[in-house]
Amino acid sequence: MDMVALVTAASFANVMLPSQHYATKGIKRGNAFVNFNIGEGPRLGVKKHACYGGLKVKANAQNYNADDDDDKFSRVIRTSIRNKFTIRVYEVDASGKASIETLMNYYQSSILDHFKKVGVHDDVSGSTKEMIKKNLIWVYSDMQVATYRFPKWEDEVEVESWICAAGINGVRFNWILRDFKTNQVLNIASSVCVAMNKLTRRLSKIPEEVRREFESHLVNSSVIIKDDNKKIPKLDETTADYICSSLRPRWSDLDVHFHVNNANYVSWILESIPESILMNFELSSMSLKFKRECGIDSKLQSLAAICRDEDINNNVECNHMLRFEDGVEILRGRTNWRPKSANSVAIFDRVPAQASINAS
Amino acid sequence: MDMVALVTAASFANVMLPSQHYATKGIKRGNAFVNFNIGEGPRLGVKKHACYGGLKVKANAQNYNADDDDDKFSRVIRTSIRNKFTIRVYEVDASGKASIETLMNYYQSSILDHFKKVGVHDDVSGSTKEMIKKNLIWVYSDMQVATYRFPKWEDEVEVESWICAAGINGVRFNWILRDFKTNQVLNIASSVCVAMNKLTRRLSKIPEEVRREFESHLVNSSVIIKDDNKKIPKLDETTADYICSSLRPRWSDLDVHFHVNNANYVSWILESIPESILMNFELSSMSLKFKRECGIDSKLQSLAAICRDEDINNNVECNHMLRFEDGVEILRGRTNWRPKSANSVAIFDRVPAQASINAS
Repeated sequence: MDMVALVTAASFANVMLPSQHYATKGIKRGNAFVNFNIGEGPRLGVKKHACYGGLKVKANAQNYNADDDDDKFSRVIRTSIRNKFTIRVYEVDASGKASIETLMNYYQSSILDHFKKVGVHDDVSGSTKEMIKKNLIWVYSDMQVATYRFPKWEDEVEVESWICAAGINGVRFNWILRDFKTNQVLNIASSVCVAMNKLTRRLSKIPEEVRREFESHLVNSSVIIKDDNKKIPKLDETTADYICSSLRPRWSDLDVHFHVNNANYVSWILESIPESILMNFELSSMSLKFKRECGIDSKLQSLAAICRDEDINNNVECNHMLRFEDGVEILRGRTNWRPKSANSVAIFDRVPAQASINAS
Repeated sequence: MDMVALVTAASFANVMLPSQHYATKGIKRGNAFVNFNIGEGPRLGVKKHACYGGLKVKANAQNYNADDDDDKFSRVIRTSIRNKFTIRVYEVDASGKASIETLMNYYQSSILDHFKKVGVHDDVSGSTKEMIKKNLIWVYSDMQVATYRFPKWEDEVEVESWICAAGINGVRFNWILRDFKTNQVLNIASSVCVAMNKLTRRLSKIPEEVRREFESHLVNSSVIIKDDNKKIPKLDETTADYICSSLRPRWSDLDVHFHVNNANYVSWILESIPESILMNFELSSMSLKFKRECGIDSKLQSLAAICRDEDINNNVECNHMLRFEDGVEILRGRTNWRPKSANSVAIFDRVPAQASINAS
């Protein structure tokens, strides 16, 4: 069996140092194609009226099921890996449903298992043998998530994962999370990872020796969630509606590289969203642009600008920025929220092409 | 099958409100009987030289295995429930091993599964049918933990759990966590839970109707980790070596009762321990006295007094207090730490009597 890139949850947590920016060159980005349209729900008094788009998804549909619709997200049998999870009681949040952090953790775990199953290297520190020789680790560059229903305690879910190329400098990971019993799609996510030198903390091209290790396991696949490329604005004291300061990583937030795990970035984003939204709305989609890593000594601020979704009545859209206290950016993000009362499940506007084996 | 008390992870998270104190009356406490004796390891410059005892455990033994020693922690076949877990990549901390919070989460999950398997009620919110009628939920009162080895990523572990009476007002939960392949004991824990009225936030006696629901599933069992009853001192600015302020729960810390999950209390305790200890030592034992609950608006301080263990050379002992910023106590605790270089696994000084069925 060929050597493949082993990408660990630990390394996923690593994003950019203050001196580092993700080089988008060579990494393809698409356009949003999924749209939500939610009915009446709790109304929110928001302070601002203009936002910047974001992932567009469509809901108010009845129980989307992959079996109902030909090839839509049908299983990529020959090229993907499936992992089963049962939602544990400590993985649900105040709503009684799996938290978004839990789903992100499942995705990390699934990719690690993916590479283990197709490859030979299975160290928790990540990286292929060639990457270890060159002190390279994988880091998240961006992530898009669309949520149709959050599973609840004891629900069994299955995560299907596959990887594809993302330009010359990245690898794209894709996930579909389904209800194990009904096969209903509950969540889809996609993320681009790039290589970083763990000594210099600078991004690196993927060396040819490394690419050879995993290229046979790359899949030709459409992007399952395309980014609309609408700019997520930089926020500051004058443009943010809410600023949560004095955020610090806890010891338990660190991974084996002493970096904050990516799911914690989402926890910090949530900190700047008013309780009225967290209580009455649920996350429908999320787009994250990781810019820098942070460690145990980091002091952060979480900023949010909140407005009504331009396209979907009663929905809420938030722009986010995490930054160090000196103002240096760590992450920009956008979240979209639908009323919790809208008990709807999304359907997909477009059908992603089925993944196929690239080379093996 | 008889109705039994369903105790959820969520309800475990609930501890006392500022106006509430745990009534120890009627709840039996024993004495510490496990002792560690660790060899040479990294030395720590500590600021204080006197501590107050704590759980005493003995190590420097070779690979303790239940099979090696007759009845020591042999499986309580007829009366206990076993749950298997595989350490996921996001459940390890910076050391690459399962965090103590992960083990506490496993214990929560195991007890919930325990009650589900022997009972009929399986709501994530916890409580038996009679408890729901009376607005009662279970809350942790105290917890003792002894750690012999932390499992690493992908290790398979099995948690055996059983419950026994704890006076007239409490129920004691017991857990043994073993390496699934070798049966080696890695961690043991015990906790007393009591009932709290979720409307008044006051502790309650366990009503007879509730007790009848689960008493047939109580086990006659020795306490597997006895508290030495040495007082954990109250800490303040004059007695603490380290104070970590401005701690706030995150949205993701809350359970379905909008209370902070108990594992997060441990995360906060760790915040006040210097990195030199966290880096060079590993937790060998822990004793927690939960005093109050806290919610999303709580602002906390974590205080720690650190000294060399009186009984075990090179080991470190810490006393802890979590308090609201107004000084009201939330938790007192004691942790003991052994040098990470001491690659030893504990054996037990005394053999707890095998649990037996009380009534069924």
